[in-house]
Amino acid sequence: MGQRPRVAVVGAGSWGTAFACVPARGGCRVTLWARRRELADAIASDRRNPEYLEGVELPEALTATHDVERAVAGADVVVMAVPSHAFRDVFAEVVPHLGPDASVVSLTKGIEQDSLMRMSEVVREVGDLPEDRVAAVSGPNLAKEIAGGQPSASVVACADERRAEALQVAFMAPYFRVYVNPDVVGVELGGAFKNVIALAAGIGDGMGFGDNSKASLMTRGLAEIARLGKQMGGNPLTFAGLAGMGDLIATCISPLSRNRHVGEELGKGRSLEEIVAETKMVAEGVKSSRGVVRLAEKLGVDVPIAEHVCRVLYDGMTPQDMVRSLMEREARPELEGLDDDA
Amino acid sequence: MGQRPRVAVVGAGSWGTAFACVPARGGCRVTLWARRRELADAIASDRRNPEYLEGVELPEALTATHDVERAVAGADVVVMAVPSHAFRDVFAEVVPHLGPDASVVSLTKGIEQDSLMRMSEVVREVGDLPEDRVAAVSGPNLAKEIAGGQPSASVVACADERRAEALQVAFMAPYFRVYVNPDVVGVELGGAFKNVIALAAGIGDGMGFGDNSKASLMTRGLAEIARLGKQMGGNPLTFAGLAGMGDLIATCISPLSRNRHVGEELGKGRSLEEIVAETKMVAEGVKSSRGVVRLAEKLGVDVPIAEHVCRVLYDGMTPQDMVRSLMEREARPELEGLDDDA
Repeated sequence: MGQRPRVAVVGAGSWGTAFACVPARGGCRVTLWARRRELADAIASDRRNPEYLEGVELPEALTATHDVERAVAGADVVVMAVPSHAFRDVFAEVVPHLGPDASVVSLTKGIEQDSLMRMSEVVREVGDLPEDRVAAVSGPNLAKEIAGGQPSASVVACADERRAEALQVAFMAPYFRVYVNPDVVGVELGGAFKNVIALAAGIGDGMGFGDNSKASLMTRGLAEIARLGKQMGGNPLTFAGLAGMGDLIATCISPLSRNRHVGEELGKGRSLEEIVAETKMVAEGVKSSRGVVRLAEKLGVDVPIAEHVCRVLYDGMTPQDMVRSLMEREARPELEGLDDDA
Repeated sequence: MGQRPRVAVVGAGSWGTAFACVPARGGCRVTLWARRRELADAIASDRRNPEYLEGVELPEALTATHDVERAVAGADVVVMAVPSHAFRDVFAEVVPHLGPDASVVSLTKGIEQDSLMRMSEVVREVGDLPEDRVAAVSGPNLAKEIAGGQPSASVVACADERRAEALQVAFMAPYFRVYVNPDVVGVELGGAFKNVIALAAGIGDGMGFGDNSKASLMTRGLAEIARLGKQMGGNPLTFAGLAGMGDLIATCISPLSRNRHVGEELGKGRSLEEIVAETKMVAEGVKSSRGVVRLAEKLGVDVPIAEHVCRVLYDGMTPQDMVRSLMEREARPELEGLDDDA
């Protein structure tokens, strides 16, 4: 990768833009791609992203373009930061310009709706790439805080340890610690599933429950994520890390989290239709919850919290009945489905 | 244990009292012991604990006494709910009255100062008891919320699986889910160490950091707890459960947590002396931090967050230097010291 790698970040939303600043401030040349020319031009000329990250001055080493070829050709690292529903199509535009040894890194937290594929699987299928060239970065990633230089930490996961370490060096900053973990499956699943648990945590907030209830729910939610992840081939310990617990905590406690907020409104007794009509956007967890439950059914894994969230979202179950039903389940060993000895 | 076990709860603080309500509401006869006669009498006559759990009506099946023999003799289950510094002496008073097959359950979250022993180790030493008779209950245990019937969950840990299951049945209530876990070491260590991490989380709050920073710190804090716990013979997965992550979250996010609050004041630049002078009490984490660091040193485990908390508490390190020093450490694999394959 030479001295400092050249980096392309594909997707100029808040997280893509905030993430692009990290290697740029660390001395890498970074090109940020935005689909819309106006946004790319505004970023390039004003050193700000007026739509998604207002108020943050972007570093000198960061340029922007709406031309995929200009962004990607010659880049040592291509970072994908587009929503899951657009990921496949955008990456198909990237592939023709991808260098022969470029790394592809996904920042996207979601599961593809119909295929139930993780984003790194989409990358490998669309780009016909071996697993050692594909990585995922995840963790507690509230974009505004990271762009503001507040200390935080994330994980880079890649099957190829040397590539993971090179990416770690490229992405590490004084305010952004990066840890490596070989478990791509676990790191990606944590990001996709946590939004569903954040909906449940928000429901509890809306019903007026306290920090104990929330902590219990988040912990049992993480056990669901870990059980499913283990069945998919992930390492259960990954879920106790930054891409599991870390991301889940940030999402469930942040007043700004969209998923938690939608849950809170549900917990107050409002319907999904009312909430969507008012906020004019669909939280990622609302999209992911059915996918997660379908994935769990396919693999024979018990995910009671995710299932109950689906029932509240789509089957008219009340939050009160959700809580009663979850609390009355038969008592189980805590580590069931996680620990081979349990 | 017959139909419904007879339960003695030794210690009428807020958590002992709140916990005593759970089996009492489930049909067990429960006796709560308070050291001071006035408190025992007030609880017995008013069905309230005016000092530690005001505003909660205690169930009919709960009686109170200041006489250890009356509380403990004939009890199938003796629950210890006294602070760690008083634990050994109070349990020595309990031992002569302990039935030949009574279970002893510790609710206390701490490490004995000089011996560095966990509470279940103190029980076994003082009572000369085999490990299969000693259990620990831990989890997110904000007393007021549980006494108020808000849904939450905890873990009962015992080396004897059948005894753990019997305790699970005794302690389970519609609002209080109990999971079993054979890992006593892990369950106890999680409760003792989390207060130290809560101090660190509070320091971040006091410095004005956001939810990302907090989630990152809590996650890396849990990795320290898990590394130390594994070295002590615990199961790393326990720390991803209710007695690890669950308790840590509740303590770090609750505005009511004493440890988090002391940390917040430190983060604002105040000294420990000023804070202690004002609050007139010492948070448990302040007591535990040195013990945890000594335990880690003895076992050769790296616990950077706990060490830095000690330096801020006792060596005059500023919170700013603490953050800088923690963020500039060499980057490591995320699961180092946890995963045998890592």
